[in-house]
Amino acid sequence: MTDHPANGLDDVVHQRVRLGIMAIVHEARQVEFGFLRTTLQLTAGNLGQHLNVLEKADLIEIHKGYQDKRPCTWVTLTANGRTALRHEIAHLKQLIHTVERVEAPGEAVT
Amino acid sequence: MTDHPANGLDDVVHQRVRLGIMAIVHEARQVEFGFLRTTLQLTAGNLGQHLNVLEKADLIEIHKGYQDKRPCTWVTLTANGRTALRHEIAHLKQLIHTVERVEAPGEAVT
Repeated sequence: MTDHPANGLDDVVHQRVRLGIMAIVHEARQVEFGFLRTTLQLTAGNLGQHLNVLEKADLIEIHKGYQDKRPCTWVTLTANGRTALRHEIAHLKQLIHTVERVEAPGEAVT
Repeated sequence: MTDHPANGLDDVVHQRVRLGIMAIVHEARQVEFGFLRTTLQLTAGNLGQHLNVLEKADLIEIHKGYQDKRPCTWVTLTANGRTALRHEIAHLKQLIHTVERVEAPGEAVT
C-alpha cells in the first residue's frame, strides 16, 4: 500500500491556498491579482508569497501590464502547471474513492 | 465568488500527510502507528507530529496497548474527525468540479 494516493500529492500544488489559485487561474485562463486576493480572502502579502512559490516551481507565469491606465498583475498557468493540476486532481479523486468505498449505508459522503 | 471551495478547506485536515492519515484511518476504522508510517512513507517523528496536531484538534483518538506482548499505538477517528473528513471531501469535490467544467475537448482531467 506504498502507493497510497496521499503519497502522490505534491505539497507545492496541494497546499490549500495554492490549490485554490491554480483552480481559479485554470478556470479563468488569465486572472488579475486583485481578483485572486478577493476570491481567496487573502492579504496581498500572503497571496504574493504563494504566487512566488508557484512561479519558482514553473507552475504559473506572472505578467505585469496596464488596464485603463492602472497597473495590473496577470497570472496564467504554464503547461507544467496544467499538468500538475491534472495530477493533483487525479490523486484527489483516488483518495476520495478510498474514503467513499467504505462508507456505511446512510453515511454517504456528499 | 467569496464562497470558492478552496476557502472551505480546513488547513488542519487538508494538509497532505494529515489528509492521508485521516483517509487511511477512516478506511481501516482502527490503524496501528507502524502501518501509517509505512503506508505514508514517514519517519516516526514526522508521523507523531501530525498525529499530535490531529489529536489536539479532536479529530483522532490515540490508544496505547499491546498486541502479541508488543506495545502498539492505535489510531481511530473521532465523531468530529469523521465530520471534518466529510466536509473536506465535499469541498474537494466542488473544487474538482470547478476545474473539470472548463476542460477543453481532448484535455479531460482524469
